[in-house]
Amino acid sequence: MAHLLEQLEQFANLDLQRAARTGIPEVVLAERKLPAQTVAIVQRLLRDLGRVLVSCVPPETLAALEQALSAEVIWTRYGEGRTLALQLPGADMATSSGQVGVLTAGTGDIPIAEEAAALCREMGCAVHCAYDVGVAGLHRLFEPLRMLLAVPVDAIVVAAGMDGALPSVVAGLVDVPVIGLPTSVGYGFGGGGMGALTSMLQTCTPGLAVVNIDNGIGAGAMAGLIAVRAAAARKDQEPRTEN
Amino acid sequence: MAHLLEQLEQFANLDLQRAARTGIPEVVLAERKLPAQTVAIVQRLLRDLGRVLVSCVPPETLAALEQALSAEVIWTRYGEGRTLALQLPGADMATSSGQVGVLTAGTGDIPIAEEAAALCREMGCAVHCAYDVGVAGLHRLFEPLRMLLAVPVDAIVVAAGMDGALPSVVAGLVDVPVIGLPTSVGYGFGGGGMGALTSMLQTCTPGLAVVNIDNGIGAGAMAGLIAVRAAAARKDQEPRTEN
Amino acid sequence: MAHLLEQLEQFANLDLQRAARTGIPEVVLAERKLPAQTVAIVQRLLRDLGRVLVSCVPPETLAALEQALSAEVIWTRYGEGRTLALQLPGADMATSSGQVGVLTAGTGDIPIAEEAAALCREMGCAVHCAYDVGVAGLHRLFEPLRMLLAVPVDAIVVAAGMDGALPSVVAGLVDVPVIGLPTSVGYGFGGGGMGALTSMLQTCTPGLAVVNIDNGIGAGAMAGLIAVRAAAARKDQEPRTEN
Amino acid sequence: MAHLLEQLEQFANLDLQRAARTGIPEVVLAERKLPAQTVAIVQRLLRDLGRVLVSCVPPETLAALEQALSAEVIWTRYGEGRTLALQLPGADMATSSGQVGVLTAGTGDIPIAEEAAALCREMGCAVHCAYDVGVAGLHRLFEPLRMLLAVPVDAIVVAAGMDGALPSVVAGLVDVPVIGLPTSVGYGFGGGGMGALTSMLQTCTPGLAVVNIDNGIGAGAMAGLIAVRAAAARKDQEPRTEN
Amino acid sequence: MAHLLEQLEQFANLDLQRAARTGIPEVVLAERKLPAQTVAIVQRLLRDLGRVLVSCVPPETLAALEQALSAEVIWTRYGEGRTLALQLPGADMATSSGQVGVLTAGTGDIPIAEEAAALCREMGCAVHCAYDVGVAGLHRLFEPLRMLLAVPVDAIVVAAGMDGALPSVVAGLVDVPVIGLPTSVGYGFGGGGMGALTSMLQTCTPGLAVVNIDNGIGAGAMAGLIAVRAAAARKDQEPRTEN
Amino acid sequence: MAHLLEQLEQFANLDLQRAARTGIPEVVLAERKLPAQTVAIVQRLLRDLGRVLVSCVPPETLAALEQALSAEVIWTRYGEGRTLALQLPGADMATSSGQVGVLTAGTGDIPIAEEAAALCREMGCAVHCAYDVGVAGLHRLFEPLRMLLAVPVDAIVVAAGMDGALPSVVAGLVDVPVIGLPTSVGYGFGGGGMGALTSMLQTCTPGLAVVNIDNGIGAGAMAGLIAVRAAAARKDQEPRTEN
Amino acid sequence: MAHLLEQLEQFANLDLQRAARTGIPEVVLAERKLPAQTVAIVQRLLRDLGRVLVSCVPPETLAALEQALSAEVIWTRYGEGRTLALQLPGADMATSSGQVGVLTAGTGDIPIAEEAAALCREMGCAVHCAYDVGVAGLHRLFEPLRMLLAVPVDAIVVAAGMDGALPSVVAGLVDVPVIGLPTSVGYGFGGGGMGALTSMLQTCTPGLAVVNIDNGIGAGAMAGLIAVRAAAARKDQEPRTEN
Amino acid sequence: MAHLLEQLEQFANLDLQRAARTGIPEVVLAERKLPAQTVAIVQRLLRDLGRVLVSCVPPETLAALEQALSAEVIWTRYGEGRTLALQLPGADMATSSGQVGVLTAGTGDIPIAEEAAALCREMGCAVHCAYDVGVAGLHRLFEPLRMLLAVPVDAIVVAAGMDGALPSVVAGLVDVPVIGLPTSVGYGFGGGGMGALTSMLQTCTPGLAVVNIDNGIGAGAMAGLIAVRAAAARKDQEPRTEN
Repeated sequence: MAHLLEQLEQFANLDLQRAARTGIPEVVLAERKLPAQTVAIVQRLLRDLGRVLVSCVPPETLAALEQALSAEVIWTRYGEGRTLALQLPGADMATSSGQVGVLTAGTGDIPIAEEAAALCREMGCAVHCAYDVGVAGLHRLFEPLRMLLAVPVDAIVVAAGMDGALPSVVAGLVDVPVIGLPTSVGYGFGGGGMGALTSMLQTCTPGLAVVNIDNGIGAGAMAGLIAVRAAAARKDQEPRTEN
Repeated sequence: MAHLLEQLEQFANLDLQRAARTGIPEVVLAERKLPAQTVAIVQRLLRDLGRVLVSCVPPETLAALEQALSAEVIWTRYGEGRTLALQLPGADMATSSGQVGVLTAGTGDIPIAEEAAALCREMGCAVHCAYDVGVAGLHRLFEPLRMLLAVPVDAIVVAAGMDGALPSVVAGLVDVPVIGLPTSVGYGFGGGGMGALTSMLQTCTPGLAVVNIDNGIGAGAMAGLIAVRAAAARKDQEPRTEN
Repeated sequence: MAHLLEQLEQFANLDLQRAARTGIPEVVLAERKLPAQTVAIVQRLLRDLGRVLVSCVPPETLAALEQALSAEVIWTRYGEGRTLALQLPGADMATSSGQVGVLTAGTGDIPIAEEAAALCREMGCAVHCAYDVGVAGLHRLFEPLRMLLAVPVDAIVVAAGMDGALPSVVAGLVDVPVIGLPTSVGYGFGGGGMGALTSMLQTCTPGLAVVNIDNGIGAGAMAGLIAVRAAAARKDQEPRTEN
Repeated sequence: MAHLLEQLEQFANLDLQRAARTGIPEVVLAERKLPAQTVAIVQRLLRDLGRVLVSCVPPETLAALEQALSAEVIWTRYGEGRTLALQLPGADMATSSGQVGVLTAGTGDIPIAEEAAALCREMGCAVHCAYDVGVAGLHRLFEPLRMLLAVPVDAIVVAAGMDGALPSVVAGLVDVPVIGLPTSVGYGFGGGGMGALTSMLQTCTPGLAVVNIDNGIGAGAMAGLIAVRAAAARKDQEPRTEN
Repeated sequence: MAHLLEQLEQFANLDLQRAARTGIPEVVLAERKLPAQTVAIVQRLLRDLGRVLVSCVPPETLAALEQALSAEVIWTRYGEGRTLALQLPGADMATSSGQVGVLTAGTGDIPIAEEAAALCREMGCAVHCAYDVGVAGLHRLFEPLRMLLAVPVDAIVVAAGMDGALPSVVAGLVDVPVIGLPTSVGYGFGGGGMGALTSMLQTCTPGLAVVNIDNGIGAGAMAGLIAVRAAAARKDQEPRTEN
Repeated sequence: MAHLLEQLEQFANLDLQRAARTGIPEVVLAERKLPAQTVAIVQRLLRDLGRVLVSCVPPETLAALEQALSAEVIWTRYGEGRTLALQLPGADMATSSGQVGVLTAGTGDIPIAEEAAALCREMGCAVHCAYDVGVAGLHRLFEPLRMLLAVPVDAIVVAAGMDGALPSVVAGLVDVPVIGLPTSVGYGFGGGGMGALTSMLQTCTPGLAVVNIDNGIGAGAMAGLIAVRAAAARKDQEPRTEN
Repeated sequence: MAHLLEQLEQFANLDLQRAARTGIPEVVLAERKLPAQTVAIVQRLLRDLGRVLVSCVPPETLAALEQALSAEVIWTRYGEGRTLALQLPGADMATSSGQVGVLTAGTGDIPIAEEAAALCREMGCAVHCAYDVGVAGLHRLFEPLRMLLAVPVDAIVVAAGMDGALPSVVAGLVDVPVIGLPTSVGYGFGGGGMGALTSMLQTCTPGLAVVNIDNGIGAGAMAGLIAVRAAAARKDQEPRTEN
Repeated sequence: MAHLLEQLEQFANLDLQRAARTGIPEVVLAERKLPAQTVAIVQRLLRDLGRVLVSCVPPETLAALEQALSAEVIWTRYGEGRTLALQLPGADMATSSGQVGVLTAGTGDIPIAEEAAALCREMGCAVHCAYDVGVAGLHRLFEPLRMLLAVPVDAIVVAAGMDGALPSVVAGLVDVPVIGLPTSVGYGFGGGGMGALTSMLQTCTPGLAVVNIDNGIGAGAMAGLIAVRAAAARKDQEPRTEN
């Protein structure tokens, strides 16, 4: 394994300072890596940083991690194991009074939305979720929205596939920045998320910006950055209890 | 002019029986024709059928028609002159108790929606319109919708550009067949109506079918066919006052 | 299983009132769900509503349903098991004198067309089908068309892949609203249904509206809505034998 | 002008032998050339070959040619002047007993179809045309088709825009090679001829090959090559009256 | 004019409460409206709200506004007159300590970026701009970036056409939320802004979300919402000098 | 099996007269059919017509046919079994003096080209093939071309993937109609045959028409029709030795 | 004018060192600039650097430059004035023994090719051109190619529209790096240069790299860089006569 | 095996002279070939040329080669076995003082970059690599770049997926010709390498040309040709130690 780690150093100059510089934790995209490669990177990051987020985890990589990581590692699974937050006991934990809302139009959008939620939590934010509140039955939308406005949240991630109409409807009803997260749910013409992405970009309601299809990490990073900064402004006047 | 008409017979075997066979009136698409060609075709159809609908009328064709047609022709202008219903006095008028609703998301969608409304009226239907009720301010939608349901209408044409979300929202709230009419309002990625078409095809709400971008005639024909047939069923039991 | 059901309530706010509001029965799209998820949703809907339609059923989900559902459930299979109509004995059955025609251009279009037929039957309509009547041999089209006009049907669903020419030809010959249902039959440029969708949207014949590629449920819902409303108009004067 | 001709020799190595080698006459595409450039090339080809075809002629180039060419040049205009066949008196004329049919779906397709007809005539073929016989009214198709089969023609060019369904219908009814010629008639999704091209490529009926959108010259060249070769085979047994 | 205003009420249910609800001022998109329509809408909004932003102003609409508006209206022109902020003396002015940065890659991106800046200013934010700092000469980027971080800004709008690389580079260097604003600068494959949009969506650097091509209003609204909320959090502890 | 055949009659109105009407034999596309469906259709066509062509044969269908068909069936395999010509002893065999050339640019294009060759042979033509003569080494092209011109052939099918340049080069060198057959060889941008199709449609050389990507049957049918008709013209003067 | 220059400094941080750093001269893209903007930038660059290249010059900008520039400026016009090389007398002139070949497939490609040639000449290279040597008549290609190989050239720019086949053919015949320059010549499917770009990217012949459609500057810069470096290597041993 | 080789001669006219003519070695693309086909071609090329490069090697073909090739074959594996350089002992080895740099933006781009490196080495060049130096952390770029400029290299291949920004950044910093190599790393809109290709073609920095997505061989061939020619120029003055 030591040899593999050396190879890794040659292959990937891991950017350990990025977390410090941008406030966004290190994320390992497991999808196109061999399980052994992911395991080695995760182990190194745990050793150096104490915590790491792993996204798009294939089942065989999940198994390899379960077998390889030491028992003391603390696991949090999101989206049925698609996203993993791993940390060593006592690792530094980002804290913030940032508040993020996460909504999905359908049930198929949940694993992608969870990716965004996981990243926001790693950034120290509180995340408030409501799933399957889509446009076909508008009455299901209003209660979750009232809940998010009561917190109040600093930003809302809205995940939707198919016609991608939910983020526009939400942005038309609130004065909170909305991050549209198109998902690859959908088929035929405009399938694979293209319809959702297109209609989010074509929105008539200002206050909505988007990330790429299925890019839950990107949506979470944007929402987290907004919330952490708003929280930092609030902190200046409040007793900073979380530090 | 007689010579031009003879040329026309050579060029275009006008399908005078179509109106009788499908219940949809003859429509002259003026967009790609020379003004003189449109004038000649319109004059022949007026002589043979007593009435004609002209769509996508360019300003110079409008001027040519105004100059060429005899004073007795009765004009109805839709969508600021983009669509014209022309008839001779005493021409047979289709009658029906068919009821059609027409909604638009924005003001830019109105000329296209008027094209659909014009065709439905030529088929003898009553048309009930409400414009600029789009998704960005949902509260503007509910009163028009209640009005349409009170008629009640047999079909609803919903014209929308940009993100094209309105037809899905409407279809999710009513049990009336909805015809989605994407318009070429929009720019950038998904512009020219592609975003609207895509999200209508990706709709999560059943009870919605679509026509091509800016095809108001097609949307009107579909809605008119549905309404005329429903009205015919009602007619069998009612005193046919309109004949 | 009770635990899974509770999770489901958290994941999916099932919209039990939709059937009542729009006249379109509840449809479970099984394609992107785990077999256990589909089984749980189906069981809950059967318990609450007495009947449910399941579409895009993968073989392993079919097997899971066959094993899990109680013996009293009444099964109707469409399109070689791709679509399932499931009901408990004595469940309320929608009734209507609505009449729907369903045509396909080729044999490959049949499973998608059956999805539309299944939905129309669940809405209480009589469905009249004729398959493989495509454009390459026009003489095969005329007899089925005469049959549909003799019923007469209130709407016709026409499923076609490849060049998608059949719906236009049909709409040019009848005065019944036609719903074009493009299927993913086809390859190369314009394959996967894009050619069929494109030519249906580009049709020269009014009286045709379309749904997305392979969206049999959507086509059936549109046709069913039209037929049910026409039938309701007829019912007002006829003895309602079906209630 | 002599200077311009010299410049031309530097710019364009005109391929005077092509006509002899492939049986297809020299065609000058006027669309992207300055009027003076087209005039100079036409004059040189008339001088060297005695005849030339000019396609996609803009109005200002038409005017320039009318002014510049000597009075003895014999003009034949096709498609309202979009295509010009020019020759000097006594120039060699290709002769052939080749027979080509040309059909169009609508009137908008005629100028493109005329381009194909012009090229076939330059190759010495007899051309038999029938315009505006499109799919929306199938009954208009049968008489022209019977006429073409009675000649009988060696190849049929079928020009169509919009849904491009006519070539497939024709190829399904005859045993003559059909060249599909998509035209840029059409709008919205699949507009500009894309819908027509797509459905011709997706045809279910063998015996159909296509050229690019609005490429009347290409369609004519293919049909002409087929007809000239078939005629040559016939000639071997018939008295060659045309030479 | 009174008559035109009445027509307007029928055509456009202006949503006067939107500004209050979402914090984003009313914007009139002048591009697809007749000059008289824009003048009438602007006059009504000035009368009702005291201020209005007009975007995508064509030259003839600019002239019509200059002629029609009363002399007391206060004009601010952005992007060479493409965007106009109009207000009556004494109109309520939004105030905020929100800080927004606006960068452009090239000079061609400036008019679009100014649209974003105008909207942020209308929302009461201070806007800090640096133009033509694009990727081809990275050394020009660092000084402006240091300036923005010194403010510090709450959000940065980065406008770029062509390869759209600048937003990713900026987001990789700062911990401020970045809104990518692709512009239609560019030609050939990926032209019209598609290349810029694509590479922004494909970014490897988290903390970046995008709006549609040339949608300066959308980018400004997103940045403004973020900044106003951050400023509100700061305000709770500071003396609110701006009210 | 009898039952399956009856089902088939209901599912597929086999068009047994097509061969007689268009000169193109019946082709069974095996790709999207279950092996048992293909076997049943093949058996019926063998019984009724004595011969059948099967294309796009998957390995499992090949195995099913080998097991199911009676021993007397005569097999001809093309393209490593992708295409099968099956006949009963003594079945009528189309005869013709038609001559067809078939070229491929690379080795990957051969299975598709063989599909075209198989169809031409079923139409009674002699087929002359030369493979892997592509543009990267032009010197390999000249000898095969000289051979084809010496026959001489009535039509040439040229199969090419990647940049699809070969058909244009060939059409520029001969005066024989060329059918461009783009294949799905290729990757990245323009992959899957799109590059080949595009460049064939954009050809500068007249005398070239194309079919869809991988549509060997369509290319063969077009070439066969041309050759059979040319041969029929020749036959009128020659002793018909092949009947 | 002084005021406009000051505005310019604010708008455009001209990158005067780029020429020195990359060996590529400063190029002003005149297409999207107002004539006065272009004039001001050109005057400043002439003053600072002594020479400048202006590309995509619209006629009105050409007129403005002719009027504004002092009489001593030395003009070189390329591609009928589309590209301008401007210099003051005595300005430093790059010198190199770099040798570049430039070929075009058709006459329509010449203005774009001239843009590449102009840039190479500004870099001090000798440029050897041959125009209209396209694939439809291969025999026209061989003599120019022999000429280029005799020089010998260090790189060849090959401009082609339509099917874009020429660069692949050239790269298959020589061992010199080839830069494919797709031009926007072409129409219909794959028009506007997409067909040419696609087939160049799909080339089967190694030794070919491409730039974007109509990007003559980019092609020239690449060829110039290659040639200048090769020449520098040669210079080390030769008497540097050009300095 | 002898029989298979004979078949091969019929199937593939291997172009053994290409290496000599263009300086680019013979490359066998193993991806779409059966393992046995690849083995036979490799064995023949080893016998005839002494060396061969095999690219896109699937695992089963790798295994087949390992088993089939004689023990004396010398193997060099690139990109985890995706590319293989095979040679017999004593085979002629191309030598050159050509110097090529190879950079990648991420780790996922390495196997494609290695393909380019392998080809350059086969052409006799020295290759200098630095991997994972992408735009998100610009500080990682500068040291590798300084190293390449110190060599100095004759050409640089820059492989990047996702937003494909790295080649533009590099070309803006150096005066060496850069070959952009887009890789299929990326997902959602612009995925599969389309985003990378698009932004490379849209680059604002001259001195960059591109090859198709994942075409490492093409990038290597272009870089190798450039470097070999520059080295040849240098050689003329240096003692040729490598021959």
